[in-house]
Amino acid sequence: MPDPRLSRRHVFGYAGAAGLGGAAGVVAGRATAGSDDAAAQRVGGRTYLAHGDHQSGILTPTPAVGELVAFDLLPSVDRTALGRLMRVWSGDVAALAAGRPVPGDAAPDLAQAGVSLSILIGLGPRVFDLPGLAAARPTGFQEIPPMAHDRLEDRWSGGDLLAWVSADDATSVAHAVRRLTTDAAPFARPRWTQRGSWRPVDADGNPVTGRNLFGQLDGSANPSGETLTATVFSTDGWLAGGTQLVVRRIEMNLATWDELTRDRQERVIGRALDTGAPLTGTAEHDDVDLTAAVDGVPVIAADAHARVAHPSHNSGRRMLRRGLNYTHEEWIDGSWTSSAGLIFTAFQASIADQFIPVQRMLDQGDALNEWTTAIGSAVFVIPPGFAEGAWLAQGLLGD
Amino acid sequence: MPDPRLSRRHVFGYAGAAGLGGAAGVVAGRATAGSDDAAAQRVGGRTYLAHGDHQSGILTPTPAVGELVAFDLLPSVDRTALGRLMRVWSGDVAALAAGRPVPGDAAPDLAQAGVSLSILIGLGPRVFDLPGLAAARPTGFQEIPPMAHDRLEDRWSGGDLLAWVSADDATSVAHAVRRLTTDAAPFARPRWTQRGSWRPVDADGNPVTGRNLFGQLDGSANPSGETLTATVFSTDGWLAGGTQLVVRRIEMNLATWDELTRDRQERVIGRALDTGAPLTGTAEHDDVDLTAAVDGVPVIAADAHARVAHPSHNSGRRMLRRGLNYTHEEWIDGSWTSSAGLIFTAFQASIADQFIPVQRMLDQGDALNEWTTAIGSAVFVIPPGFAEGAWLAQGLLGD
Repeated sequence: MPDPRLSRRHVFGYAGAAGLGGAAGVVAGRATAGSDDAAAQRVGGRTYLAHGDHQSGILTPTPAVGELVAFDLLPSVDRTALGRLMRVWSGDVAALAAGRPVPGDAAPDLAQAGVSLSILIGLGPRVFDLPGLAAARPTGFQEIPPMAHDRLEDRWSGGDLLAWVSADDATSVAHAVRRLTTDAAPFARPRWTQRGSWRPVDADGNPVTGRNLFGQLDGSANPSGETLTATVFSTDGWLAGGTQLVVRRIEMNLATWDELTRDRQERVIGRALDTGAPLTGTAEHDDVDLTAAVDGVPVIAADAHARVAHPSHNSGRRMLRRGLNYTHEEWIDGSWTSSAGLIFTAFQASIADQFIPVQRMLDQGDALNEWTTAIGSAVFVIPPGFAEGAWLAQGLLGD
Repeated sequence: MPDPRLSRRHVFGYAGAAGLGGAAGVVAGRATAGSDDAAAQRVGGRTYLAHGDHQSGILTPTPAVGELVAFDLLPSVDRTALGRLMRVWSGDVAALAAGRPVPGDAAPDLAQAGVSLSILIGLGPRVFDLPGLAAARPTGFQEIPPMAHDRLEDRWSGGDLLAWVSADDATSVAHAVRRLTTDAAPFARPRWTQRGSWRPVDADGNPVTGRNLFGQLDGSANPSGETLTATVFSTDGWLAGGTQLVVRRIEMNLATWDELTRDRQERVIGRALDTGAPLTGTAEHDDVDLTAAVDGVPVIAADAHARVAHPSHNSGRRMLRRGLNYTHEEWIDGSWTSSAGLIFTAFQASIADQFIPVQRMLDQGDALNEWTTAIGSAVFVIPPGFAEGAWLAQGLLGD
């Protein structure tokens, strides 16, 4: 039953909101004095209904706040018990996205519509080690093999389940995380939490790609239209309409990056910092011309990030990026230590065919490696969306 | 010179935006399809110009993200050097609030208008120990004496300077903090950082009081109009137009709070959770009737927070609250530990006359103490606002 608080006049598909095609969800914008067109432009203040062909939180625009929580399954949890958790979480996801408290919610007044809340649920590798599930392990789903530049820490890596909550504000996110964690307690306990932020609009409120803490537009090369659908979504058995997710915690050395000249920074990236345009073009979404040269010197350097990550450098391989910036302080040996970076995330139909070969190229040849270090790594299968009355991963765990 | 990106049509005083009087700053709303009235309703997407009688970040509505950074002065810093830092920071504050990079900004593309950014600068107690400044210590400015329920940690307490950055998103905040910290490096280094969030609007985008992680509307008793001005702003010498700030990190035991019945929670607070109305009224801003009784039993219990904190229980003493919710994870002895709470902040003309006596009453008699513990404490003098061409604390540090 539609939430009566959501005015019909403001219900529309979100495809127009961020220029992403293939969207199945339905979105309600907060009632404003503006027109529906103006409402469609906004990224914040939305209500993303949970049901559809795909889960919310993949194609929906990245709002200001994201929190990823990985869980470890308790040893007693089998296929049946995991199915029970997925049924509970499916109800939670639908309620919280619509702004309703979950059953038994201890803080029901914190549930609120119009906060751009979405909850993306994922399954880690060990799920497919459970008795009866080995045959259902999706093709291409695997851990990321060690890379030369990795300095991985166990405390930021792995996990049997993922709940990725996004919203306009961290109080709404904290409430959703608390509900999901409480309801998961008989089945799983938190392994790690990563919080990040994004600035998805320009000064006029128009959706933009957003910038990482190097100041770089991050995600300019994301696919759109039919390419997006083919890049992201699986067509493989129970996972059809779902996807595979890589989460990497990338520490960024802001101190040494800041010491570079702007010209040097742009050559490392292969793009202009202000517009995000490739150094061979004038606008963010211009094609990167890998053949362009001046006096025999390539305009996009051999080790520029934009070259090494480019699909034509990688047999056409692509992924959908949806990063979050983080800053983090730790109390170590009696003093505070600060760090900053990017919660790198990439959606693709197959981790083995897409992320891993591209990451191998970057690990070997990306100039950015001098200022970036992966300190965490995790992979999750993202089940397809679910219809009302159905539940997440029912195709995997249902009878 | 006004920023040309700020349309004159959308420049207006912010007094109408949040119902707070006494505002001196000027605000520009992001251009939208709506009317000026609709823009005036919004809390996000604003541009708060830095100059005025009071610093921004006191009366301006609390946006989604806040980060408080306390600094320790380096031993070599004297009155003259502190004045140099205040001049540098004053330029930074004005630039960043308007969406402009600071001089030498290593990530100029992260500066952006329309992100509701404000930066509030404060001076800690040790500033008035510097040679030549003892006589300028404001009346009533002092550390908070130990309270029975405190469990203070040095790592969340104290500080010689404060920079409190507020904005709609943490990426904009992180950029401002990085610039302020970099420019402060010759004079001061960070002592602690506290990050928090607030949800300042309802589902329709209208400004509301906002809720803490207990689900409680937090700040309902804030003063308004002339009472607000008299409560908050000093009339004392160089500090006239400035104020005094208390920052307390209050850990909240969500697990045991969640176990209470809703009825019990409401009796502890003395207010209804959904509307925030006192148990003797029907709306959030109804007067709390401390005399009301049913069958001889007070409706607002003797130890209810709303009674013990009430001005009539405290010889009329008031303060202006502007809290932020936090959640925090720490890696301790090989595992993650989670905590949550409130970055409690209170502005008043005199800490000695306002915060301290009220806090003594709460420490002795507030039922909420069972679920809350102060783990950090700091106090700062908040200099008055500054005009273009002038600088922060010039009345204290200028020749």
